[in-house]
Amino acid sequence: DGKRKVDYILCYKYKKRRSCKRLSISSNGNLPIILPIRLEAEAESGEAGGAAGDAEDSKLTEEEKALMREEFEAGLLEAGLQIERDKEDSCLKLNGISFIRLHIPWSILSREAELQKIKVAVKKKCELRKRTGIAGMWDTVISQLNRPFQPDVPDNDIHKDSQSHVNFKTLKHSFIRDKLHLYDIKSTATLFDNATRSRIVAEIISRTTCTRTCQTTEGISSLLARGVYISAFPLHDGPFTRRGRKDQRNERQLLHEEWANYGVMFKYQPVDLIRKYFGEQIGLYFAWLGVYTQLLIPPSVLGIIVFLYGILTVDTNVPSQETCDDNLNITMCPLCDAVCDYWRLSSVCSLARASYLFDNGATVLFAIFMSLWAACFLEHWKRRQMCLKHSWDLTSLEHEEERVQDELRPEYAEALQEKKAKLKAQAKKKLPRNCPFLTYLKFFNLYFTVSLGLCFTIFVTFSAVFGVVVYRICMLSVWSMNPDPEAKASVRMTVTTTGIILNMLVVLVLEEVYGAIAVWLTELELPKTEEEFEERLIFKSFFLKSMNAFAPIFYVAFFKGRFAGRPGDYVYVFGDYRMEECAPPGCLIELCIQLSMIMLGKQLIQNNVFEILIPKMKKMYRTIQEEKGKKRAAESEENETEEIRPKQQFDKDFALEPFEGVSPEYMEMIIQYGFVSLFVASFPLAPAFALLNNVIEIRLDAAKFVTEIRRPDAVRCKDIGIWYNILCGISKFSVITNAFVISFTSEFVPRMVYQYMYSGNGTMSGYTEHSLSYFNVSNFPPGTAPTTTLITGVSMCRRYKDYRDPPWASDAYTFSKQYWSVLAARLAFVIFFQNLAMFLSMLVAWMIPDVPRSLREQLKKENMALMEFLLGQDQ
Amino acid sequence: DGKRKVDYILCYKYKKRRSCKRLSISSNGNLPIILPIRLEAEAESGEAGGAAGDAEDSKLTEEEKALMREEFEAGLLEAGLQIERDKEDSCLKLNGISFIRLHIPWSILSREAELQKIKVAVKKKCELRKRTGIAGMWDTVISQLNRPFQPDVPDNDIHKDSQSHVNFKTLKHSFIRDKLHLYDIKSTATLFDNATRSRIVAEIISRTTCTRTCQTTEGISSLLARGVYISAFPLHDGPFTRRGRKDQRNERQLLHEEWANYGVMFKYQPVDLIRKYFGEQIGLYFAWLGVYTQLLIPPSVLGIIVFLYGILTVDTNVPSQETCDDNLNITMCPLCDAVCDYWRLSSVCSLARASYLFDNGATVLFAIFMSLWAACFLEHWKRRQMCLKHSWDLTSLEHEEERVQDELRPEYAEALQEKKAKLKAQAKKKLPRNCPFLTYLKFFNLYFTVSLGLCFTIFVTFSAVFGVVVYRICMLSVWSMNPDPEAKASVRMTVTTTGIILNMLVVLVLEEVYGAIAVWLTELELPKTEEEFEERLIFKSFFLKSMNAFAPIFYVAFFKGRFAGRPGDYVYVFGDYRMEECAPPGCLIELCIQLSMIMLGKQLIQNNVFEILIPKMKKMYRTIQEEKGKKRAAESEENETEEIRPKQQFDKDFALEPFEGVSPEYMEMIIQYGFVSLFVASFPLAPAFALLNNVIEIRLDAAKFVTEIRRPDAVRCKDIGIWYNILCGISKFSVITNAFVISFTSEFVPRMVYQYMYSGNGTMSGYTEHSLSYFNVSNFPPGTAPTTTLITGVSMCRRYKDYRDPPWASDAYTFSKQYWSVLAARLAFVIFFQNLAMFLSMLVAWMIPDVPRSLREQLKKENMALMEFLLGQDQ
Repeated sequence: DGKRKVDYILCYKYKKRRSCKRLSISSNGNLPIILPIRLEAEAESGEAGGAAGDAEDSKLTEEEKALMREEFEAGLLEAGLQIERDKEDSCLKLNGISFIRLHIPWSILSREAELQKIKVAVKKKCELRKRTGIAGMWDTVISQLNRPFQPDVPDNDIHKDSQSHVNFKTLKHSFIRDKLHLYDIKSTATLFDNATRSRIVAEIISRTTCTRTCQTTEGISSLLARGVYISAFPLHDGPFTRRGRKDQRNERQLLHEEWANYGVMFKYQPVDLIRKYFGEQIGLYFAWLGVYTQLLIPPSVLGIIVFLYGILTVDTNVPSQETCDDNLNITMCPLCDAVCDYWRLSSVCSLARASYLFDNGATVLFAIFMSLWAACFLEHWKRRQMCLKHSWDLTSLEHEEERVQDELRPEYAEALQEKKAKLKAQAKKKLPRNCPFLTYLKFFNLYFTVSLGLCFTIFVTFSAVFGVVVYRICMLSVWSMNPDPEAKASVRMTVTTTGIILNMLVVLVLEEVYGAIAVWLTELELPKTEEEFEERLIFKSFFLKSMNAFAPIFYVAFFKGRFAGRPGDYVYVFGDYRMEECAPPGCLIELCIQLSMIMLGKQLIQNNVFEILIPKMKKMYRTIQEEKGKKRAAESEENETEEIRPKQQFDKDFALEPFEGVSPEYMEMIIQYGFVSLFVASFPLAPAFALLNNVIEIRLDAAKFVTEIRRPDAVRCKDIGIWYNILCGISKFSVITNAFVISFTSEFVPRMVYQYMYSGNGTMSGYTEHSLSYFNVSNFPPGTAPTTTLITGVSMCRRYKDYRDPPWASDAYTFSKQYWSVLAARLAFVIFFQNLAMFLSMLVAWMIPDVPRSLREQLKKENMALMEFLLGQDQ
Repeated sequence: DGKRKVDYILCYKYKKRRSCKRLSISSNGNLPIILPIRLEAEAESGEAGGAAGDAEDSKLTEEEKALMREEFEAGLLEAGLQIERDKEDSCLKLNGISFIRLHIPWSILSREAELQKIKVAVKKKCELRKRTGIAGMWDTVISQLNRPFQPDVPDNDIHKDSQSHVNFKTLKHSFIRDKLHLYDIKSTATLFDNATRSRIVAEIISRTTCTRTCQTTEGISSLLARGVYISAFPLHDGPFTRRGRKDQRNERQLLHEEWANYGVMFKYQPVDLIRKYFGEQIGLYFAWLGVYTQLLIPPSVLGIIVFLYGILTVDTNVPSQETCDDNLNITMCPLCDAVCDYWRLSSVCSLARASYLFDNGATVLFAIFMSLWAACFLEHWKRRQMCLKHSWDLTSLEHEEERVQDELRPEYAEALQEKKAKLKAQAKKKLPRNCPFLTYLKFFNLYFTVSLGLCFTIFVTFSAVFGVVVYRICMLSVWSMNPDPEAKASVRMTVTTTGIILNMLVVLVLEEVYGAIAVWLTELELPKTEEEFEERLIFKSFFLKSMNAFAPIFYVAFFKGRFAGRPGDYVYVFGDYRMEECAPPGCLIELCIQLSMIMLGKQLIQNNVFEILIPKMKKMYRTIQEEKGKKRAAESEENETEEIRPKQQFDKDFALEPFEGVSPEYMEMIIQYGFVSLFVASFPLAPAFALLNNVIEIRLDAAKFVTEIRRPDAVRCKDIGIWYNILCGISKFSVITNAFVISFTSEFVPRMVYQYMYSGNGTMSGYTEHSLSYFNVSNFPPGTAPTTTLITGVSMCRRYKDYRDPPWASDAYTFSKQYWSVLAARLAFVIFFQNLAMFLSMLVAWMIPDVPRSLREQLKKENMALMEFLLGQDQ
C-alpha cells in the first residue's frame, strides 16, 4: 500500500475458526506480499483445509474456496496485476474478512487501454466555435443567465484562454502505446483517472478464468456467485466530508458539496463529474433524470394555469350553473332500489363545480400539449444523449460493450455444467440420450410456469381492484340502509375515501411483492447472459408494477359506472349488490381524486419510507450487530491490535451498502412518468407534483450514491437502453388513454354535440335537461320503488343520466338517437385526437434533428483538426 | 499507362480551336508526363490563353479554367497522386476532350487507408459456427434448397476447408501501416480492390483545394460545377461481354452474367459483389430491392388466395344474391332529376357480384395481415441491413461519412462568396451593414416562395383531380340526356373508363413535371451541403409525387358519393350538374378499378417508356450526333491518326451516361410500396402485380448499371437513410387508410351491424332491404320527378341507398337511429383496427431483435479470435 494506487478490492470471508492463533503464526509477517504469492497461498490453503471442517454446511467447502482463490489470484498475477494482502492476518479481523488490494502497473494499463480504444487527450486543442452577431449575443445572454445555475465544478476538457476569451477544447484520440508523443501526458500515474483504472482492472478480473479448480466458471462473477469471494468493488476517492481548502477537494467531496446537497437544488447537476466518478451508466441515469425534471417545468406551469382557468371560469359555466339552479327543480331517480329516495339534482352542486375544474375545454388542449411534450421530451433526450455520447467518447463502444456483457451468467453456467455432468453420467450408464422432444417439453414447461406466474399476478391485481370495488359496494349498500339521513349524506364521501386509501395500500404492498416475484420468475427462466437477465427482469417488473399501479385508475376511468343499468333495471352482482356508479357530475372527478391520491401517496411513502427510513433502519440494525460482534470479540478476550489499526478507505467502503444497479431508480421514475402522462387529461396538476418530487429525488439519490453505497463498477453504456423504449411505449399509449378519457370519461364531447347539434341557439343552456332521460315511476318493477320518500306529489316522470328514449316513445328505454350520435361523436373524437396527437408527435420528432447542428459542426471541426494534427505528426 | 493502374479519370473540354496545329507541336511528345507537370501545364495554359478568345461566352474564360486546372493538378501532385495525360495532344481528339488519368501510389494509399480505418484481412481465420443436431440438419436442408437460387459468384471472405467441411471466415482489422505483418497481403497492388482505390482517390480529390485561382472552392465538386472539368469518374473493370473462359471473368463480366441477365431472374442477387464493384450505396439499394421483392411473395400468394376465396363464395353471399333476386322487385329512385328513370335493383346484379370479390370478410383479415407484413418487412430489412453492415465493415463509419458529406455545395459556396463580395463592396462604400432584420426578411421571403410553389403544385394536383371529376359529371349528364336506352346503359362504364385513363395520363405527366419542380424549388432554397440538398429534394419530390399518384385514389375512396344528397334533395355543383355518386353496390369496386388501372398503367408505361424507350432514343440521338461529328471531322480533312488509336476503357466509359444517384429508383419503388400497402384492403392483388414488376425491375436496373452508365463513385453509407423513415411513415399511414377503407368504403361494417344487431335470426337475409330507405314520390320537388318512366303503376314509395327515417316518421328523411349506430360502429371499427394493427406491428417489431442472434454470436466469436490474435502478436 502506501505508494501504489489501490485500483480494486476483492474481499472474502473466513469462517470463524477455533484455532486462530495457529494461523496467525504461519502467515508471513507485516510486509505486503507481492510475489511469490503462490507459496503463501499454498500454505494458507493447507491451513484453510484444516479449518474447513466446520464449514461443511456451505455448498463449497472452505478448502475448495481457498483453492479457487489461490488459482484465481495466480491467474491475476499472470495477467500482470499486482496483489497486496492485508498486513494483519485476516483471521484477526472482525468476522474474518480479508481484503485483497489489486494494483495495475503501467505496462498492463497501457496495453489494455490500447485494446479498449480508450480516448486520451492529444497535445492539440481545438477552438470552440462561437457564434457571432445576434446569435452570439443571445448565447452570451443565455450563458450569463445560466451561470448561477451551473454547479461550481472545474471542467477539464475546456480551457479558457484569458487573452482572447476563446474557449479551447482538448482533442482526443484512441490511445496507442507506440505513439506516446502524440498525447498530452503529465504522468503515467494520472493519465487515466481512477474510474478508468478500476474499469480496466474489472475487465481483467472478469476475463481471468480459473479452469483447474472451478471448471467452467468465467471470471469474478461466478466466484462471487459461489461465495468464493464475498464482494469485489473499486474504492471511493476518500471521505466525502471536506476538511481542507476548497480547491483541494477530491472528487467525492466535490460531488458531495456540489451535487448531493439540498443547498444546490436549483442548480444543474455536474453530469460530467458524475460520469467521471461513477461511470457512464449512472451518469446517464442522472443526466436523464435532470432532463426529465427540467422538462417537467413547462407542463407544470401550464397545468397550474389550466387549473386556475378552471377556477376562474367556473362561475360562467352553464352546465354546472344549471345543476346548481334550484329553480329548474329536477327530480332525479333513486340510485338504488327500494331503500334510496328520489333526490334533487341541485344537491350535487358543489361536486359539479369541482368537476368543472378538471373537465373544461382547456384540459383538452392541455392533453394535446402533453402528447407533444412527450415527443419533445423524447427527442430532447435523444439529442442530449447524442451530445453526451460525443463528449464522453462513447461512439465507438458497440463492440466492447457486447464483449463485456455477453458473458454467461454464473447461474446459467452452473446449470449448463450440471446438465453436462448429467449427460456424461447418462453416457456412462449407457442410457439412451435425452430425446430432443423432452428437452422441448422441459422448455415449454418452464415457459408455462413463467406465464402461469404472470397470469396469477395479473389475476391477483385484478382481484385486488375488484376486492376494493366489492368493499365499496358493500359499504355503500350497508350504509344506505342506515335510516339516519345525515349519515346517508356522508356515506359516499367516506366510502370513496376509504376505498382509495385501501387501493393505495394494496398498490404499495403489491409493488414490493411483485418486485420479488419478477426476480423469482426471471431466475426460473435462467437467462443466458447478465444483459438478458437484466432486460427480462426489467420487462417483467415493469409490466407487473405498472399494471399494479394503473389498474385501479383504469377501472375508475373506463369501467366504473358503465354497467350500472338504468332505474328499474339495475345490474346486480352477488345477488343483491348494485354495480357501483359514478357521482352524477361524471366519473372524471373520481378519476382525478384517485389519481392524485395514488400518485402522491406512492411518492410520499416511497420517498420517505423506502428510501430514507428503511436504509436508516438497516444501518441501525447493522451498527447494533457490529457492536454486538465487537462486544463478543471483546468478551472472547482476543488481542486488540486490530482495533488500533487505523481504518483504511476499503474498510469504510466495505461497511457501505453494495450497489444494486440503477434499474429500481429508473423504474420509479418511469412509473411516475406513467402517472404524469397517461391520465393527464383528468389531472393537469400531475406534472407539478412530479416536478416537486423529482427535485428532491435527485438530491436524495445523489446523497445515496455519494455517501451510502460502495463505489460501483464504472459500467460503460451508450444509452439508457430498454428504458427509452418503455418511455416511447408509454408516450404512445398515453395518447390513446387520454383520447378515451376525454371522450368517454369527461363530458366534453356530449357538451360539444349538444352545443352544435341539438341546442337551438348555439349556447349550452338546456344541456343539463338534455343529458337526462325520463323515467316513468309506474315502470318500477314491484319492490324496487322507493319505500319511503321525502319528495312527494311529483309527476309520473323522474330523471336519470343517460340518453334513452322516453317512456312515451314506441321503444321506451332503449338507447335514443342522441345516444348513438353522441357515441359516434365520442368515437370520432378518439380517432381525431389520436391521429392528431400522433401526427404532431411525429412532426416534432421529425423537425428536431437527432444530432444538434452545433454539435455536428463542432464535431466536424474537431475531426478536421485531429486529422490535420495526425497528418502533421505523421510527416 | 500500361503498367500503373488507372484509379480515376478527370476530363475536361477544350473549345474547338482554329489553330490546332500550333498547339500539337508545343506539347511535349508521346511519353507520359508525371513530373514536372507544372512546366507543361504552364506552357499549356499559355496556349490556352491564346485560344480563349472565342470562349468568352462561358462564365469563366478558358484561360481561367486552365489556370484552375493547373493549380488543382499541382495540388494533386502535392498530395502524392500520380498524373498521366493523354499521349496524343488533346486538341486532336473529337470535340477536344482531354483525359487525365490519376494513379495512387502505395505510400499514399496505405496512409489514407490507415486514416480512413479501412479494414483489411488479417492472417487469422475464424471458424464459422455451425449448428448441430436438428438445427444443423435444418440449416443443411435449407442451404441445399437454396443452392439453385444462389448466384454463381465466388466469395472471397469465406474459405472452405475441404477436409473438415468447416467454413472459415477471414478476420478483418483496421489497416495500420506499422503492423503490416498482421495482414494477409499477397501484393500491395491487389490489397485494396479497384473500388476502394477509386474511393480513396475521390476522397483526396475532393479534399484538394485550389485557393489561389479559384478562391473558396473546395475540391473537385466545385470545379465540376464551374465547368473547369466536365466530369470525373472511376473506370469500369473492362468490357462487360465475356470473351475468355468462365473463370477468367472480370467483375463486370461476372455481374453481367450472374446478375444483369433475365436468365438468372429466379436467383438471389450477388449483393456482395455489387457492393464491391459499385460501392455500398448501390449495394444497399439492390439489397433492399431484393428483400422487398422476396418479401412480396407471401402477400402475393395470400392476395390471390383471398381473391379466389371471393370467387368461390360469391354464390353463397346473401346480399349479392338478394340484389340479383328479381322476386324482391325493389324499385329504386332515379339517380338524377327529371331525365333519369326509376330502375330495378336487380339491374346492377353483376356489379354487386364483382364488388363482393373484393369486399368480403377475408379482405379485412388480409388488411390486418398486410400491416403486420409491413412491420415484418421493416424489421427484416433492419436485420438484413445490420448483417450487411457487419459483413461490409460499416460499423465505424459515422465519422468518416460525416466528414465527406459535410462539404459545402458548390452552389452554396458560390452564393456565399457573392454575399461576401457584396459585403466587402458595401464596407468599401461605407454603407451601413445590412441590418439583420433584412436578412431574416430575405430568408422568410425565400421560404415563402418555396411554400407558395408547393401550395401551387398541391392546387394543381387537386384541380387535376377535380377536373377529371367535372369531366365525368358533365359527360354523365350530357349522355344521360341521350334518349337512346342502349347508349344510356353503357354510359356509366364508358365514362368511368375514360375518366380513369384521363386520370392516369394526368398522373404520369404531372409526375415528370413535379420532379422538375422539386429540383427547382430545392435549388432556390440553396441548401448548404450536398447531403441536405439530397434530403430536401427527396422530401419534396416524394411529397409531390405521392400526392399526385394518390390524390385520385383518395378521392374515390373517401369523397366520391359522400356529398350526393338524397332523392329530391340532390347536391349540385355549377348550377345544374349533380355531384357524382358511386355505383349502387358501393364505392369499393370503383376504388379497386381505379387503383389497379393507375398502378398497372404507371408501372407499364414507366418501365417501358421511361426506362427502356427514352434511354434508347437518347443513345440513338447521340450516335447520330457523333456520326455527324465524325463526318464533319472527316470533311475538315484532319489527319486521322486519332481514329487509329485503339479505344481505351476511359473513352468507352466516357461515352456512357453519367450516374445520377439512386434516388429516382428508390422513389419509384416507394410509390409502388404506397400502392401496395395504402389501399390493399380494396385490391388484394396489388402485391402480386408489384412482385411481377419488381422481378423485371431488378434485372432492368442491373443491366442499366452494368452496361449503360459510367462506374459511379463508390459512396459509403451504412443505411438507406431517409427512405427507411419514409417507408415507416407509409406503413403507419397505411394502417389508417386501410381502417377507413374497410369501415367507410366497404360495406363490411354495416353488414356486421345488421347481422348482430338488427337481423332477427343472426343471418344476413334481409340486409339489402334494410340498407335501403323509403322515399315518397309525392315529395319530389316540382320538376325533379322523372318525366318519362318505363316502370309505371308503382306504390308511392321508392328506395335509395341510405339510412334515413321513412317518410311516415315524425322527422322524415333525417338520418335514422340505424345511421348513427352504423356510424358509431364504423368509427369503433376504425379505432379497433388501427390500434390492433399498431399494437401488433409494435409487437412484431419488438419480438424480432434488430441484430440476429446468429450474427451476434458470430461477431462475439470473431472479436474474441481477433483479440486473441492481436494479443498473441503483441507478445
